[in-house]
Amino acid sequence: MCDLLRINTDRGVMIADGKSRFSINGKPIYHFVGTSTFSEYTVMHVGCVAKINPQAPLDKVCVLSCGISTGLGASINVAKPPKGSTVAVFGLGAVGLAAAEGARIAGASRIIGVDLNPSRFEEARKFGCTEFVNPKDHNKPVQEVLAEMTNGGVDRSVECTGNINAMIQAFECVHDGWGVAVLVGVPHKDAEFKTHPMNFLNERTLKGTFFGNYKPRTDLPNVVELYMKKELEVEKFITHSVPFAEINKAFDLMAKGEGIRCIIRMEN
Amino acid sequence: MCDLLRINTDRGVMIADGKSRFSINGKPIYHFVGTSTFSEYTVMHVGCVAKINPQAPLDKVCVLSCGISTGLGASINVAKPPKGSTVAVFGLGAVGLAAAEGARIAGASRIIGVDLNPSRFEEARKFGCTEFVNPKDHNKPVQEVLAEMTNGGVDRSVECTGNINAMIQAFECVHDGWGVAVLVGVPHKDAEFKTHPMNFLNERTLKGTFFGNYKPRTDLPNVVELYMKKELEVEKFITHSVPFAEINKAFDLMAKGEGIRCIIRMEN
Repeated sequence: MCDLLRINTDRGVMIADGKSRFSINGKPIYHFVGTSTFSEYTVMHVGCVAKINPQAPLDKVCVLSCGISTGLGASINVAKPPKGSTVAVFGLGAVGLAAAEGARIAGASRIIGVDLNPSRFEEARKFGCTEFVNPKDHNKPVQEVLAEMTNGGVDRSVECTGNINAMIQAFECVHDGWGVAVLVGVPHKDAEFKTHPMNFLNERTLKGTFFGNYKPRTDLPNVVELYMKKELEVEKFITHSVPFAEINKAFDLMAKGEGIRCIIRMEN
Repeated sequence: MCDLLRINTDRGVMIADGKSRFSINGKPIYHFVGTSTFSEYTVMHVGCVAKINPQAPLDKVCVLSCGISTGLGASINVAKPPKGSTVAVFGLGAVGLAAAEGARIAGASRIIGVDLNPSRFEEARKFGCTEFVNPKDHNKPVQEVLAEMTNGGVDRSVECTGNINAMIQAFECVHDGWGVAVLVGVPHKDAEFKTHPMNFLNERTLKGTFFGNYKPRTDLPNVVELYMKKELEVEKFITHSVPFAEINKAFDLMAKGEGIRCIIRMEN
């Protein structure tokens, strides 16, 4: 975690002189989370730039820049499911699908997708999910449903919703003795994680991760190489491709929350 | 974690036939947590017996049977402080002193003892503590005090009080990015662990441990060997030695809570 450059949505300016590099008709336009990429040209701190394979198609690998790498890394780098293990993924949006894909790459044999929206289930099979739980289908807590499906608890869980209840469920559904839960979702600022501490004493581990524990400058080029070597298919993460002029249409599609994931195309 | 034999204070009987093996004047005496060791002879499940070096003095190595191994293992097996790292130990009773000793054995260079009772500090130096914090001496949360002492947070923390607030402090005092907090203390049954989930997203880890992750039958003989090889001094963990007839005096001494740790001597 870089103290200097860590994500600061309020900064809006360059660190060196506290000023913006963008303007329109003399009015300053502020920077956004260090990269300001919804523009044809941008200015950013050298620490925010990673050099990737120049052969890589930018209209594809751009999806690796945030949520997808976060989900992949949450499984591959943090949860580290042993071969043949069982993983529960909470939330089957883009990050959760990437977490499932990461669990598959790591060698998990059962990947249980948990989501309140069953329309996401079928497509999630492409990302390695083998089973599904819709908490609405059960009269008991999803922790208990998962414990019954797995003889006491899953080996790993990855939480990709940001919902505080899902975070608690993701922790409480792992098996005593070796279970590891990984929190990926960004919680509401007033959210409080609550659990009985005996759940820890039973030798469980709870970890959080930021960007899947990838160090962007060092590690992102290697994630791009996974795509170039065809070990990682990024195309399946894209459902729509929208020109920049229709950027608000892309946000509307995503807001529908039915598993729609968009690429914004820059066009001259 | 052994499903069959895991600690069950309510069981009180042998598993095979659900009966007690002890009686006095025909009245049954119940078993206690699987070992019933406050007696000259005992009967226990084979899974509760570990064979140790027959040369080991039982009146010394008996202290390794519960809290001391738990504290040692919490540091050595679970927190695993890197060489030269900083460790905070919450609670300087027997378990906390053992956690400090374990951190020292593992190679930590700063070991910060946190306790509300400053009379425990001087002796804790024998167990590797290099600095102390009494939360009562400060107007701000102990997490902040520790962050100031350590440029942002300790590398590892081990919680040995069972107090829920100390558990939360122990988690919140570790450094973003790599900090690991280990919960050892047994919490009150109604206690609730509460923290802002952003504390996890900043790449911290929270683990609990039971018996320091030692597997008793396999690992306890090796802990005894540490003593036999003089790598671990168990004598310093003993402040009083009390004959069995005065067992209640031993409990009274411990209840004073000033760092008194007793051995109960069996005498024929």
